[in-house]
Amino acid sequence: MTLIKKTFLTVLLFISCSILAQSNLKEKYNLMPWPQEIKENQEKFKITPDFTISVEGKSKRVINATTNFLRRLSGRTGVFIDEGFAFEKGQIKSPSLEIKFDKEIKLGLNKDESYSLDITNQKISITAKTDVGALRALETLLQLVDYNTESFYFSGVLIKDNPRFVWRGLMIDVARHFQPIAVIKRNLDAMASVKMNVFHWHLTDDQGFRIYSKTYPNLHKLGSDGLYYTHAQIKDVIEYANLRGIRVIPEIDVPGHASAFLTAYPEIGSKETSYQIERYAGIFDPTLDPTNDKTYEFLDNLFKEITPLFPDEYFHIGGDENEGKHWDANQKIQEFKKQHNLKTNHDLQTYFNIKLEKILKKYNKKLMGWDEIMTPNMPTTAVIHSWRGENEGLSKGGTLIEAARKGYNTVLSNGFYIDRMQPVEEHYLVEPIGDEKLSKEERKRILGGEATMWSELVTPLTIDSRIWPRTAAIAERFWSSKNVRDVNNMQKRLKVVSYQLEELGITHLKNKDAILRNITRNQNTNALKILSNISEPLKIYTRNKGGTEYKSFSPFTLFADACTSDAEDGISFKKVVDRYIKDQNSKSKEELILYFNKWKEGFKEFKKLDMSPVLTQIEPSYSYLAEFSKIISLVLEDGYSKSKEASLNKIVKKLQEPFVDVELIIVSDLDRLLEFFRKK
Amino acid sequence: MTLIKKTFLTVLLFISCSILAQSNLKEKYNLMPWPQEIKENQEKFKITPDFTISVEGKSKRVINATTNFLRRLSGRTGVFIDEGFAFEKGQIKSPSLEIKFDKEIKLGLNKDESYSLDITNQKISITAKTDVGALRALETLLQLVDYNTESFYFSGVLIKDNPRFVWRGLMIDVARHFQPIAVIKRNLDAMASVKMNVFHWHLTDDQGFRIYSKTYPNLHKLGSDGLYYTHAQIKDVIEYANLRGIRVIPEIDVPGHASAFLTAYPEIGSKETSYQIERYAGIFDPTLDPTNDKTYEFLDNLFKEITPLFPDEYFHIGGDENEGKHWDANQKIQEFKKQHNLKTNHDLQTYFNIKLEKILKKYNKKLMGWDEIMTPNMPTTAVIHSWRGENEGLSKGGTLIEAARKGYNTVLSNGFYIDRMQPVEEHYLVEPIGDEKLSKEERKRILGGEATMWSELVTPLTIDSRIWPRTAAIAERFWSSKNVRDVNNMQKRLKVVSYQLEELGITHLKNKDAILRNITRNQNTNALKILSNISEPLKIYTRNKGGTEYKSFSPFTLFADACTSDAEDGISFKKVVDRYIKDQNSKSKEELILYFNKWKEGFKEFKKLDMSPVLTQIEPSYSYLAEFSKIISLVLEDGYSKSKEASLNKIVKKLQEPFVDVELIIVSDLDRLLEFFRKK
Repeated sequence: MTLIKKTFLTVLLFISCSILAQSNLKEKYNLMPWPQEIKENQEKFKITPDFTISVEGKSKRVINATTNFLRRLSGRTGVFIDEGFAFEKGQIKSPSLEIKFDKEIKLGLNKDESYSLDITNQKISITAKTDVGALRALETLLQLVDYNTESFYFSGVLIKDNPRFVWRGLMIDVARHFQPIAVIKRNLDAMASVKMNVFHWHLTDDQGFRIYSKTYPNLHKLGSDGLYYTHAQIKDVIEYANLRGIRVIPEIDVPGHASAFLTAYPEIGSKETSYQIERYAGIFDPTLDPTNDKTYEFLDNLFKEITPLFPDEYFHIGGDENEGKHWDANQKIQEFKKQHNLKTNHDLQTYFNIKLEKILKKYNKKLMGWDEIMTPNMPTTAVIHSWRGENEGLSKGGTLIEAARKGYNTVLSNGFYIDRMQPVEEHYLVEPIGDEKLSKEERKRILGGEATMWSELVTPLTIDSRIWPRTAAIAERFWSSKNVRDVNNMQKRLKVVSYQLEELGITHLKNKDAILRNITRNQNTNALKILSNISEPLKIYTRNKGGTEYKSFSPFTLFADACTSDAEDGISFKKVVDRYIKDQNSKSKEELILYFNKWKEGFKEFKKLDMSPVLTQIEPSYSYLAEFSKIISLVLEDGYSKSKEASLNKIVKKLQEPFVDVELIIVSDLDRLLEFFRKK
Repeated sequence: MTLIKKTFLTVLLFISCSILAQSNLKEKYNLMPWPQEIKENQEKFKITPDFTISVEGKSKRVINATTNFLRRLSGRTGVFIDEGFAFEKGQIKSPSLEIKFDKEIKLGLNKDESYSLDITNQKISITAKTDVGALRALETLLQLVDYNTESFYFSGVLIKDNPRFVWRGLMIDVARHFQPIAVIKRNLDAMASVKMNVFHWHLTDDQGFRIYSKTYPNLHKLGSDGLYYTHAQIKDVIEYANLRGIRVIPEIDVPGHASAFLTAYPEIGSKETSYQIERYAGIFDPTLDPTNDKTYEFLDNLFKEITPLFPDEYFHIGGDENEGKHWDANQKIQEFKKQHNLKTNHDLQTYFNIKLEKILKKYNKKLMGWDEIMTPNMPTTAVIHSWRGENEGLSKGGTLIEAARKGYNTVLSNGFYIDRMQPVEEHYLVEPIGDEKLSKEERKRILGGEATMWSELVTPLTIDSRIWPRTAAIAERFWSSKNVRDVNNMQKRLKVVSYQLEELGITHLKNKDAILRNITRNQNTNALKILSNISEPLKIYTRNKGGTEYKSFSPFTLFADACTSDAEDGISFKKVVDRYIKDQNSKSKEELILYFNKWKEGFKEFKKLDMSPVLTQIEPSYSYLAEFSKIISLVLEDGYSKSKEASLNKIVKKLQEPFVDVELIIVSDLDRLLEFFRKK
């Protein structure tokens, strides 16, 4: 064996061991996002009432974060920590936790968020280049709280960490359903807890214009149903986000998605008509008139008023989904296109975008827009927000890669549309860059990604359960190494992160019960809980066919709203079926029967409820499930028969049908079981 | 039988029947507060998608209330109501609900809140003198939603209603634990739902000064830990309350309760010292100096800034619990007292109050204060807020009656201290006037009452569960007739009102589960739920002995915080014990055994949990409960014996001991059972 070979093998062994060690650590610790480097030291720092923090460096953010850290630590462990606030360095001897950072920064692109965290029996140290790095470290530290019978403690580790992408965002659409400040704030807290750093605030759409405007007061007066943010509230949110190291990017969506806008000021619309706030979901025709000088004067004035509220240098102008129907129908606009040699509506929109880019530049803002804005003449100062893409943008990157190659900074949302109600693993496994060969410069232009919470089907009651916990896994995709992608392990860690989000006020767990109490009019909710654990809301926009089944004020307090993606028993039942098909031993059979008994018993409990019209609609499917469970239990006990097969086949077809806007997520597993018996 | 006798008997019969009918109706409908007059008509108004509202009369409040009404109705029933907003009269033919009122009012004392509500198969009509009356009617209507298998409907009744007292308040202390705007708003919604009309905002205390001040910025900068309301937020809350027909009375507590105040501006304190924000609970010494002209100049400037924010004519200056220790210790103040012939500290405080009264008058405010301010020289323009009183203020009225007789308007809070964690019936049965003979004028001066939510031991996580549902029963005391006081029936109605509060975002039910998930670190919470259903937080300030067990930043996320007054199984277990002692038949025996089995099984489940220090503390008592349950089950099955008696006596003593700040509410019933067996 040559020396080179030997070295190679040693290195290989080292890498393998370290990968193995890392995956063992991933079983042991519930960190999310997973850090870049972590080493165990078998030590423990006990959490006791004399826990103290000292801070070296001046930063409002760290003062705020350490206070919140102490509250959360105390709340989670029940330890009555005697000192409720951090000290400045030197004020106390031997603090439990010592935080050091070089400087307080102004938030923006490409800021350093790296940190190191060192936990031993005696002491905890956090070191960072910036105050924001220190914030990220504090969140990691809180994820390291563990316990035994005697005490709570921080697990001894040494972590060195920094993000893979500089843009790790969550977009919340507050236009289709307005979200009060409290909703935004608790989601900012949750974002910070998984190290996200961009809040993209989708403020306007056909269904509402959600900012107060002094210059054009009809925007909020006629365009919002009274549901809008004051400037003071916007500043408050921005400061709240800033304290958590989160940038705020506003979006005023133009020239399309303009129904609410034009309800207030029809004179800059592309059609001579009166407009109305849109109550349905979908793509609508109302569009600003890009050939009218008044449109630019209007937007200039509006941006002049609004841009100073938002300190970030980026400003999102939407620019998506304009089909240009009102442009086609407008003779004047058609003539304008000819005069200016604009061949397509897309060209006309580019004309519009370029003008906007200049207006925004005046106010020191860089334009960001959905990927429709990427046209040949668009300056590369713009940021392209990729929401579509070839191959669904997965691994091949779609418009993301194209934008980076063309010289644009770019952010990926394709694959991260959490409103589609898909399982977490589908988002988690989206790899923004994949194996694309990019130059260093091109790579740098890929800023990161954003989960998008479009709000057609969510209200303040349900929005948290649509964002979380899945967004925590997406946050990991944006922060952690590309090779952190073990779905099973992610799901294990996510379960822990999920309930910890409750300490930040996230309502995804508790509002489920509240909705079930509402549906049953405060009767026993157990029957519905059992059913909801295998039911998921219809996916990928099938819940609201054509966008006209739900209006914005339709009820979102029903069974589908209590259900979520990744239904709890769905995953575990699938595994039980796998096991049974593989081994058919008595253990896996028993496990299967436990599930079927649960569903039979669930239906029995359900039948005891006082029936309302809401419950009546759930009954048929639940009854089929109970019937299926009964017969398949007999099959498991006494064997398969033709008559049972016939019944089961019939029932499973019924179970395939959606009911009250949900689908039974176990149906494909039931099918697999039947298939198995058939072949046996 | 003479004609007179006959008439008399007929009248008597009529009255008896009508009382009987009313109490039957109380079993049937879950209205709270119970209306003054209600008649059934056996009709039903079905709730269908074509439900519409028309409004005759102009009022922002009614526009807002009808929109919210439609959302709640739709959310509760799942009916997709097609029209999301009310119409003006004449805009639609045959509306489902027709609302008529004479005028929109400015809120204040003695405004008309009466209404009538008429529900038939065809139509619902609301008639009121004022827009606020219409609001009250809409809440009654929402409480009349019922259902059968086919549909949701409003029960056909004719109601004529008006309040007994004009002041029906809830005080929330945001000083000891800050409460964010969202907490205040959801509580305003809940107040409106039970027709309360005064929100008393206790804004300052030793533990925090919670308003931004431009004039004296150190008040919020140094006196609040950063937890205060901006003026914009205060205006927002006032408008929110106003839209719900709720007045907002601010309280700036002076001259005592001033630690936070003097932390910011020690120069107007009574002691030359530096002050600090108080972290504990109790009565503290820091007090403004009433002999210092600068104090009045300061308060004048402060009130000049703050009073315009609050449109109500009343302004609460606290004035309670000043023991004057710093006055006694200050030579200068002692001399001042001599010079001005002020014999006692009480006299000095009156001197202070009278000066304040004049300052407030300048700003068109009437002074309101806790009952300590009622001294011989205090002008009768002041409102006396009675919190102490002879006979605990019950029926004899205490300072309330005294104040009314002396010519003051007065409001009762004695008996309504919901922070004492007493059972709802104790508050419910407090009768403000009782059999006191009052002149018409005196009676008119008794404005009503206020439930007080002092916040030493509550945080945003738990405050709702301390206010609700008990405050709904108190609201009934303030609104309904004196003779509405059947506790069993109130409890039946309260249970329904309680879960309906969830639709307003009140968190009393859902946060219980969230806390139990926190305590178990997301393990099975069933064992703790069983225990919490018979555990109540220690009452009447015994939870925080001497005020020094809890600091303001101590954890309020533990078992005691998941528990509430009126523990669910406490009341029902008591009834089962009653029945068993009375009849000892097999049914009541079985019922008893069911409870004991539940507790045994609960402990078994508990033992399966991974133990943390938090759970370890709960274990001994739970284990005693399980042991007691085991032995008493044997007694029930096999009979009593000396050895069993000895064991049970020993264990019950253990169960009498509080643990983790709760007490087992069933202990006295266990005692009764033992007593019964002993005597048998």
